[in-house]
Amino acid sequence: MAAAITSREQDYSQWYNDLILKGGLADYSAVRGCMVIKPYGFALWENMRDQLDRMFKETGHVNAYFPLFIPKSFLSKEAAHVEGFAKECAVVTHYRLKNDPNGGGVVVDPEAKLEEELIVRPTSETIIWNTYKDWIQSYRDLPILVNQWANVVRWEMRTRLFLRTAEFLWQEGHTAHATAQEAVEETRKMLDVYAQFAEEWMAVPVIKGVKTANERFAGAEDTYCIEALMQDGKALQAGTSHFLGQNFAKAFDVKFSNKENELEYVWATSWGVSTRLIGGLVMAHSDDQGLILPPKIAPLQVVIVPIHKGEEQLKAITEKVNVLMSELKALGVRVKYDDSDNARPGWKFAEHELKGVPVRVAIGGRDLENNTAEVARRDEKTKATVSQDGLAAYLHGLLEEIQQNMFNKAKAYRDSHISKADTWEEFVAALENKGGFVSAHWDGTAETEEEIKAKTKATIRCIPLNNEQEEGKCILTGKASKERVLFALAY
Amino acid sequence: MAAAITSREQDYSQWYNDLILKGGLADYSAVRGCMVIKPYGFALWENMRDQLDRMFKETGHVNAYFPLFIPKSFLSKEAAHVEGFAKECAVVTHYRLKNDPNGGGVVVDPEAKLEEELIVRPTSETIIWNTYKDWIQSYRDLPILVNQWANVVRWEMRTRLFLRTAEFLWQEGHTAHATAQEAVEETRKMLDVYAQFAEEWMAVPVIKGVKTANERFAGAEDTYCIEALMQDGKALQAGTSHFLGQNFAKAFDVKFSNKENELEYVWATSWGVSTRLIGGLVMAHSDDQGLILPPKIAPLQVVIVPIHKGEEQLKAITEKVNVLMSELKALGVRVKYDDSDNARPGWKFAEHELKGVPVRVAIGGRDLENNTAEVARRDEKTKATVSQDGLAAYLHGLLEEIQQNMFNKAKAYRDSHISKADTWEEFVAALENKGGFVSAHWDGTAETEEEIKAKTKATIRCIPLNNEQEEGKCILTGKASKERVLFALAY
Repeated sequence: MAAAITSREQDYSQWYNDLILKGGLADYSAVRGCMVIKPYGFALWENMRDQLDRMFKETGHVNAYFPLFIPKSFLSKEAAHVEGFAKECAVVTHYRLKNDPNGGGVVVDPEAKLEEELIVRPTSETIIWNTYKDWIQSYRDLPILVNQWANVVRWEMRTRLFLRTAEFLWQEGHTAHATAQEAVEETRKMLDVYAQFAEEWMAVPVIKGVKTANERFAGAEDTYCIEALMQDGKALQAGTSHFLGQNFAKAFDVKFSNKENELEYVWATSWGVSTRLIGGLVMAHSDDQGLILPPKIAPLQVVIVPIHKGEEQLKAITEKVNVLMSELKALGVRVKYDDSDNARPGWKFAEHELKGVPVRVAIGGRDLENNTAEVARRDEKTKATVSQDGLAAYLHGLLEEIQQNMFNKAKAYRDSHISKADTWEEFVAALENKGGFVSAHWDGTAETEEEIKAKTKATIRCIPLNNEQEEGKCILTGKASKERVLFALAY
Repeated sequence: MAAAITSREQDYSQWYNDLILKGGLADYSAVRGCMVIKPYGFALWENMRDQLDRMFKETGHVNAYFPLFIPKSFLSKEAAHVEGFAKECAVVTHYRLKNDPNGGGVVVDPEAKLEEELIVRPTSETIIWNTYKDWIQSYRDLPILVNQWANVVRWEMRTRLFLRTAEFLWQEGHTAHATAQEAVEETRKMLDVYAQFAEEWMAVPVIKGVKTANERFAGAEDTYCIEALMQDGKALQAGTSHFLGQNFAKAFDVKFSNKENELEYVWATSWGVSTRLIGGLVMAHSDDQGLILPPKIAPLQVVIVPIHKGEEQLKAITEKVNVLMSELKALGVRVKYDDSDNARPGWKFAEHELKGVPVRVAIGGRDLENNTAEVARRDEKTKATVSQDGLAAYLHGLLEEIQQNMFNKAKAYRDSHISKADTWEEFVAALENKGGFVSAHWDGTAETEEEIKAKTKATIRCIPLNNEQEEGKCILTGKASKERVLFALAY
């Protein structure tokens, strides 16, 4: 049998770690807070990255690459930004090691001290806007629609595989515009791209909204977000898109001459999603047998297992499978024939379940006689005996059905975990009973937001876009409010 | 007119910088030795990376991702390795900044000192072999065929855009094998992949060979390389593939139980190419008008420029172009219609020449009457008037012809710059007259190699694979030698 998984009920947190580690997505590393993304996990990330990249390019963006290091003084140029990032960053102070004169291996060479320390980028607004200064003179140079795929480092004290690691992989879009309106439109457009990706590719329903001032990106005028719900009732911020106003243009003195030949500061956006999405993906769909991956991004969509007695039968099965494989590949299906003789079929079944392969096909002696195959769905754990005639087309269609079913299930769960609370008691009860999003009135102040967080650990996940306007009273202070906001416990 | 380029004759080094900067491939950055890869340069890199990635996957490799940071003690575990990399590395010593109590912005927080310093990876053998220790128990776990696309940092004192930068992008393959023979075969196989990529995709002919002990990778038993020749007669090492023996397995105690159930150390390879390839590509093909990019990896393969008088004519041209564009796209051609009214046709021509777009198509009033188009090749600077009938297919074929022609030209140049020298005088004269590779006898000692380098700056680029065996005498010491090796001045 494949490695045993802790059940969600027993220990949700351990269940998650088991899936990541035993499912072959990632490993801990020798470096505090950093992980190793294993080949299976990286193949998943590649599929996500490639699709996002296509969507960015379809919306007119191009990729570029900026330095890993940020001069310390750059961070300080935007007041809110440095507050947000200086407290958890990796600082490069020297550029050479030398042999320890006392024979203890290599030590830092004190003579190789940098004049100015370099920060390993926690995000790249500062180094990029320092570069944009050279790229932008006139309105003709705008907009700049650039994205970067990169690694970034934030020295988090408490780390979790994928969800919160000191180093992580992400993309960060950094755009420059001639008007505030155009920048806001870009911010919203990229939020839509993220929402579409989450729902159509990851099969994870999300709520689009805007953050309160407390939860804004350090240096932003407005932070838009998509919020997903995990199976333990906690929310997960899955992507953010920031309207940066002219803050970074002012910090780095980036002006352009407009059509009237007047100098103006440039308007900015930035937006990003990271390998954190993989953590959200795992927690949104998986079960106690292992991962459940949506077909559109699963590294492997179909696995075929022969169930044979003797070489002769294996040969007959393999002939059938070879035809099926080439038909599936012609349909663009990612398929593998697991005919290794290292393991028994039962072990293979458990292994592929653990790894979340959407469809398993088993072909045995009776199937050869009957021209059938056994088709097992990972999402519903159902099996069906299906004719080999037209099997490739059937499987291709089944993958689409699974993708849609996974989204529907996640959406039904999410929708059943949004509740309204009109009093403090209702609010606390809603959080405790089943978690999820609690829609409640709030008086609009940072103080109240913080007090609610201190009392319940719940934070305002977002003010939903196109939020209904409704008179009400703050659940904590009873002060007047014009709209509900979404609270939740969150990762 | 587009920005003027220094000619090769006038100042080869400035010519190169002009091409990179004015051609829009890269910019200097605010961080010493680090560059910004601009969108056009990054699109070129994406095409190179994607093709290499396909070739790696076709040869059975998978991607993974390992930490950016390497604990200082890891570097020391392999004696040659630490000698090679400790002297030029970025060292992270602290994990937090704080507000300067004296009001000078942010400063390193002395209380946030790391117990052990972290090195920003200059290459990842150590962190990866420390990980492989957990992945390998039995021969059944082998081979491991993993590649990583990543950024690395080497604190070079003298940097050149793309050719030698403190941070660069690369891929590093790290494989683990049960036998020495299998590891050597892997090393050679990946060298072949690199050579094929350089010749078929970059149109750059290369010589495959093995490095002398002096020029070996720090920690390798053997370093194989591909060597290309630039237009100034200097060689450029374009890719390396290392047979690492059991050195890293011993340093990190990575053993496996073989089929006889005996414990053995694992055999290793590593291999890499980097953004340095872009520097080689530029210097192998370009001319005094700008870049010349091989069609297979050019971000843009065909650009179409309308030459019109008035809106009416532009409309008629655009109608023709729209049909041509969709035909070209259907053939997989990367094409752009440059109908911007910001610049005149002459300016556009110069700009597209500077950027090395392989084919330019111009359509004017007379072309409308005659059903023709003017087709200009970037590689030969020739123009032809071609019928619009079947134009897409013609252009598609022309791109293939250009790709082949660029390789042929580069190969003819390279072949005419390999000379034999049998005496010291001939050797020095060959290096001085036209540069290139000089094939000469050498007595096989590191001392002689170093003395030759000190006297002439020439290094042994490689001992070619399948080298002819031939009795001879070392050009410097007159001692007996059994084969010639290739010397050159090099980047």
